Amino acid sequence: MATVRLLSDGEAPEAARAVFDDIRQVRGTDYVNHFWRALANEPATLAQVWEEVKTVMAPGKLDPLTKEMVYIAVSVANACSYCIHSHTAAARAKGMSEEQHGELMRVIALAGKTNHLVNAMQIEPDAAFRVGEED
Amino acid sequence: MATVRLLSDGEAPEAARAVFDDIRQVRGTDYVNHFWRALANEPATLAQVWEEVKTVMAPGKLDPLTKEMVYIAVSVANACSYCIHSHTAAARAKGMSEEQHGELMRVIALAGKTNHLVNAMQIEPDAAFRVGEED
Amino acid sequence: MATVRLLSDGEAPEAARAVFDDIRQVRGTDYVNHFWRALANEPATLAQVWEEVKTVMAPGKLDPLTKEMVYIAVSVANACSYCIHSHTAAARAKGMSEEQHGELMRVIALAGKTNHLVNAMQIEPDAAFRVGEED
Amino acid sequence: MATVRLLSDGEAPEAARAVFDDIRQVRGTDYVNHFWRALANEPATLAQVWEEVKTVMAPGKLDPLTKEMVYIAVSVANACSYCIHSHTAAARAKGMSEEQHGELMRVIALAGKTNHLVNAMQIEPDAAFRVGEED
Amino acid sequence: MATVRLLSDGEAPEAARAVFDDIRQVRGTDYVNHFWRALANEPATLAQVWEEVKTVMAPGKLDPLTKEMVYIAVSVANACSYCIHSHTAAARAKGMSEEQHGELMRVIALAGKTNHLVNAMQIEPDAAFRVGEED
Amino acid sequence: MATVRLLSDGEAPEAARAVFDDIRQVRGTDYVNHFWRALANEPATLAQVWEEVKTVMAPGKLDPLTKEMVYIAVSVANACSYCIHSHTAAARAKGMSEEQHGELMRVIALAGKTNHLVNAMQIEPDAAFRVGEED
Repeated sequence: MATVRLLSDGEAPEAARAVFDDIRQVRGTDYVNHFWRALANEPATLAQVWEEVKTVMAPGKLDPLTKEMVYIAVSVANACSYCIHSHTAAARAKGMSEEQHGELMRVIALAGKTNHLVNAMQIEPDAAFRVGEED
Repeated sequence: MATVRLLSDGEAPEAARAVFDDIRQVRGTDYVNHFWRALANEPATLAQVWEEVKTVMAPGKLDPLTKEMVYIAVSVANACSYCIHSHTAAARAKGMSEEQHGELMRVIALAGKTNHLVNAMQIEPDAAFRVGEED
Repeated sequence: MATVRLLSDGEAPEAARAVFDDIRQVRGTDYVNHFWRALANEPATLAQVWEEVKTVMAPGKLDPLTKEMVYIAVSVANACSYCIHSHTAAARAKGMSEEQHGELMRVIALAGKTNHLVNAMQIEPDAAFRVGEED
Repeated sequence: MATVRLLSDGEAPEAARAVFDDIRQVRGTDYVNHFWRALANEPATLAQVWEEVKTVMAPGKLDPLTKEMVYIAVSVANACSYCIHSHTAAARAKGMSEEQHGELMRVIALAGKTNHLVNAMQIEPDAAFRVGEED
Repeated sequence: MATVRLLSDGEAPEAARAVFDDIRQVRGTDYVNHFWRALANEPATLAQVWEEVKTVMAPGKLDPLTKEMVYIAVSVANACSYCIHSHTAAARAKGMSEEQHGELMRVIALAGKTNHLVNAMQIEPDAAFRVGEED
Repeated sequence: MATVRLLSDGEAPEAARAVFDDIRQVRGTDYVNHFWRALANEPATLAQVWEEVKTVMAPGKLDPLTKEMVYIAVSVANACSYCIHSHTAAARAKGMSEEQHGELMRVIALAGKTNHLVNAMQIEPDAAFRVGEED
């Protein structure tokens, strides 16, 4: 499937190929995955998203593996198949063990369960949880 | 709002009060938050969910703060207001700094953005990301 | 909150008031709830939605209480606060006991949990579950 | 995949074939796509949905291309693969250029990002944004 | 696709095979579907989820077919393809007729529609719908 | 509610106040809404998001009102209350008539309905809708 074409190196506009080159250098691999080849149809968007990914996913106050696991969590709740596949692979590449993956899934599953319970009961947050009361 | 009543200690059935007592002891506080008081209408469910929370959120291959951040990530994507409030408070209680919270939000926001981009383009996962091909 | 005004009987256009009258007669109550008063800003939409609700929620191959519980289930997963409130009230009015409500919440919570587990693992449906294979 | 069979012209009940004929005439093509062939298992639902699509998607105060882009936006956020495919094709058939598609994706992606940021921070709407305050 | 391997009987750890055996006995079939084979990578999770499914989906104050339809409803709203396939098959195995399935889809579709309408208008729940007002 | 404080001009760090100033100038109003005051806790994120909003929502191949309606559509499907309020207000400020708003809601509602129908039936996209077939 797909609603846009995945562009090969030969098909991609020059501005997109420059991003491909940076992806290859930063990641230390010749492989450019589907997401970037699809975005190559829009070189300006490709460049903006790649910059944002580099900035946000870099080591900071959270380590890169924690960030990948948070990314997986959001993608699971949003049912984004591609994102779940690519970030699970990325997390493993950054050292996530199978036991950690299993534990991650249990947390995600529990959150999914209690999110539904809470929504069913429509519970209001306790006053103690509210930081920024307005008005 | 709410579709069920929040039960005070006096109103809760004995089986629910026993769970309240365990929550107090495990957490080292007298305060029992709304979620448990709402679940107290169903003591068996209350007991099951509390056991699952204790087991899954305990230190393991992932540390408790990482688990809270994953929980927040799922809850944000599922738009569960109560869950976001309670687990953001829990993460702070477990040591999440404001800078870490800011970085967590940037990762969640980026995942939300790329989830939508990927869904819009309907990209299939690269073969390299697929672990368990069936058939 | 709200992005449109809730129209009183005096404010509603005549076409909307006619729908209000039908709601009152069918439901045997003088009370017209917020949803319909908001839709009254668009009388044609109000009339269409009310007709669809009457048709779809009427007794058929599924009984009205089962339909209300299905409605709640969808609304919980979609985090629609108003819908959860109104259809939980409707289910109770149609005879849902508190024990049934508790059991409904457990099923919804379990589905939420396994939906997240399955999405995390990206499992393909077994051949035996596929009815209408195409191409 | 699929949980129901796609009915060919020969398999579809007479009431469904009549809708197929109207689809062909309105759209000026002999091709009837999967959605309608799946709904043909329920001819009354098929007829109702087709009428609603014809009415709602017709030119009105919004032009048909704008409507298709709104449809895509909802479908992306709901992760409905079929809907994204079919309405992206429809938007292109109604004149959406690739540059417009690229811009549409950027708006959808930005909305996905800020939706997640806002949910993470649980911000209450400004008083100025509230039109229909109740009570 | 999939992010974990589906384990055959020969590959599954002994603790997982014991759960497979219970699944076979309870369901009266030799077939163990993909979900359980994927969870077999985490035998403790497999055992916990299977126990929960047995308990929650058993006959109680709601009959098993009603529970399956509620499960389908949640899974549709969460866009969980595997879950929709497996629980639609389970509902049919428990006696859901095609006419009931058609009616179930109409209720789910109507709920999806009104959930979106209500969210667009951001309507607050009527006071009469609120059971557990806090503070 | 809220999980972060809304910062007044006096409380905001200097880098955030500079963004507030640009917001005021670009929008021609002294009012800075809650979203930006919440983001002010993270001045770098505030600056990045404001730049992205200015760039993406500017007139381009799609006009600003169309973009606001697409934004509303995504926000409704994601159940983001604040976003729905703020972008409905923005769309009205950019000229959306009440009749256009009513029509927008009908399209969003129809998409919500058919998204659920399609997900329930798990229909695969027609070959004619697939642009970028991989492998």
